[in-house]
Amino acid sequence: MKNIAILGLGVVGKGTADLLEQNRELIEKRIGEPVNIKYILDLRDFPGTPYENRVVHDFNIILNDPEIELVAETMGGAHPAYDFSLACLNAGKCVVTSNKEVVATFGEELLTAAHANGVSYAFEASVGGGIPIIRPLVTDFISNEIVEISGILNGTTNYILTQMKEYGKSYADALKEAQEKGYAEKDPTADVEGIDTCRKICILTGLASGILPDAKKVKTIGISKIEGDDVKLLDKHGYSVKLLGRMTMIYGESWNGASGACSKPCLIVAPFVCGKESPLAHVNDVFNGITVCGNTLGQTMFYGRGAGADPTASAVANDILSILKDGKTSFAPAFVSAKEDDIVPSDGFACRRYIRTDLSADELNKIFGEEFKGVTQLEDGAYITDFAFNDVQFDEILLKLGNASVLRVL
Amino acid sequence: MKNIAILGLGVVGKGTADLLEQNRELIEKRIGEPVNIKYILDLRDFPGTPYENRVVHDFNIILNDPEIELVAETMGGAHPAYDFSLACLNAGKCVVTSNKEVVATFGEELLTAAHANGVSYAFEASVGGGIPIIRPLVTDFISNEIVEISGILNGTTNYILTQMKEYGKSYADALKEAQEKGYAEKDPTADVEGIDTCRKICILTGLASGILPDAKKVKTIGISKIEGDDVKLLDKHGYSVKLLGRMTMIYGESWNGASGACSKPCLIVAPFVCGKESPLAHVNDVFNGITVCGNTLGQTMFYGRGAGADPTASAVANDILSILKDGKTSFAPAFVSAKEDDIVPSDGFACRRYIRTDLSADELNKIFGEEFKGVTQLEDGAYITDFAFNDVQFDEILLKLGNASVLRVL
Repeated sequence: MKNIAILGLGVVGKGTADLLEQNRELIEKRIGEPVNIKYILDLRDFPGTPYENRVVHDFNIILNDPEIELVAETMGGAHPAYDFSLACLNAGKCVVTSNKEVVATFGEELLTAAHANGVSYAFEASVGGGIPIIRPLVTDFISNEIVEISGILNGTTNYILTQMKEYGKSYADALKEAQEKGYAEKDPTADVEGIDTCRKICILTGLASGILPDAKKVKTIGISKIEGDDVKLLDKHGYSVKLLGRMTMIYGESWNGASGACSKPCLIVAPFVCGKESPLAHVNDVFNGITVCGNTLGQTMFYGRGAGADPTASAVANDILSILKDGKTSFAPAFVSAKEDDIVPSDGFACRRYIRTDLSADELNKIFGEEFKGVTQLEDGAYITDFAFNDVQFDEILLKLGNASVLRVL
Repeated sequence: MKNIAILGLGVVGKGTADLLEQNRELIEKRIGEPVNIKYILDLRDFPGTPYENRVVHDFNIILNDPEIELVAETMGGAHPAYDFSLACLNAGKCVVTSNKEVVATFGEELLTAAHANGVSYAFEASVGGGIPIIRPLVTDFISNEIVEISGILNGTTNYILTQMKEYGKSYADALKEAQEKGYAEKDPTADVEGIDTCRKICILTGLASGILPDAKKVKTIGISKIEGDDVKLLDKHGYSVKLLGRMTMIYGESWNGASGACSKPCLIVAPFVCGKESPLAHVNDVFNGITVCGNTLGQTMFYGRGAGADPTASAVANDILSILKDGKTSFAPAFVSAKEDDIVPSDGFACRRYIRTDLSADELNKIFGEEFKGVTQLEDGAYITDFAFNDVQFDEILLKLGNASVLRVL
């Protein structure tokens, strides 16, 4: 029998416990022995539930029990989740988590502690809910350099944008509905301003490049300023607006902020206009989709339910069971926190721009000048530039555009 | 230094050799030592190429060289690919392959030989080209029962269907164009009649359920009889026609052909009408997409380039490098060839039907009778049934429909 503990019986923790019970027979067959949740750490009791006898309020009971091989941290928040995780790793227990804040902030330290103690620290559930993305990034791109990742990584904002597109709702109305349905929190800032997406693209970048960017230094633009008029106009021409976390590898000399000849990641979080030929354009509602581009493989996409108790619990349970089956050291990615020069500043992220303006194509071309000119006209007063501007280049142009509504294009 | 051999320097074999050269630096860093292609088995010589000094014509040189840890079989065809693979496994060498015919036909025997000899037999490239799908099925659904798989698994047919939809081409014209572009072979039977798709869905079923169905017993309907009129009509209403390989788990009593109370796979290969809410509807051209549904996780999709030298070579190289990095026994799925009672006959596969007919909705409902009645009208003379018929039920109704054009609905 394998003994484990769950820290925090919230939505994800309870989902994980329920899944291990629901699929008990299947799991015992696959692992070769039963998996027993010996302890559940929570401040609350859960009288009358199947879990009441396992609830403990003192973390040290778990930490000091040599029978506990693995701990699932599903508490959320930075502290004490981080502290408990580190203590477990240092005590030789594997830790799996759904906590993207802890991974994005303390990932290097926790992975180092895992390596030092001969155990695994796994976090499949921290990005993309139930979508297998963390392990595939680590194991299925071993022959390729990952040159780009673009992801719809937040279900709440994707639900809001889908509502705006499909039903012509305003941002405010769509947000209100998302809150009523429980998809958005009362204070939706972390979702709608892109903070959640930013943490996730940083984690994916860490796995792809070995360098974990500082989420606070990534340019992060949310969806709260998206205008319904733009969503409608773009929809008419076959485009969708999606909040994307994007990472692209930029080669040495092509961005003068980066030194050396090797490739370095450049990240941005922003709403992007996606043409219907992109698979991301068709990822709707609370679903997530993540495209990963390998230098030989070309583009792949991973798609599925990005949030919710069952999908997230599936990812947590996958990590638990993979480690119990394959051994304490079986999941061993490594990344180090980025130093000053490791990451190309977000201003270097180049992309085409959508512009809604009173100006004519001729006037626009005059503003762009010889080097940058050329636009594709969607309709009178709505254009997509042919040139991929980085923000240093485009910020100068923005000053001359007056009242235009502008969005990045995938 | 790790020494390997490649059997067959065709499109995939050469792509694999090229990739190992192109990404040499990255690979050495990830594996910890260089990977050396010591031999290439081919009937031809390749004078003037970087490979000329490694070409051998005698398989026994490879088989008897103890330095060769791993052999990549990229020959295609059943024989001698199967025979060489078995000999290598029995000699304690790992084998990786892109050969779906060999895996679908001899998978049980080769996996058994691999287990017996403490080596891996891996076949990521046999399904979905460069899309990571084999390893994710084995490792990333460990906490879930896989209850359904639906896949666009053949790039050639998806290209033809996309051309019919986007440009209103006839099947014959689209096929001719695919042949001119090199996407379809001169004899396109294996692709257009669904044989290739069938082998692939059988392999995926083997991994998901532990039972490898006999491809010859799966009802397999190709795309050669698809009418442009139906594609056009359905497109107008937001539907796409896709050739899908599908597997669904059917529970004991719900299909009287299956005995026992456990769940058993039921497979079919056929063109399906896909609504735009399905992510498969948006997989176009030569791309593949595979949805996998877990009992707790819900639906996920894996998407990418399903064919071509580079993507397929990426998958072969991923298998090579994963095994060299993680050890000889690191990839160890298991399945056994299906016995009579293990699989629900394809006639048990239930789905709604699209019907284009001169009959009215009232007349249709009369034909269906009380039990099955109910249709959604797309336009005059075009309907989708509300009821999901299996083929035993629907074959009786077909007799009464006269000249109708009928397709299955996802």
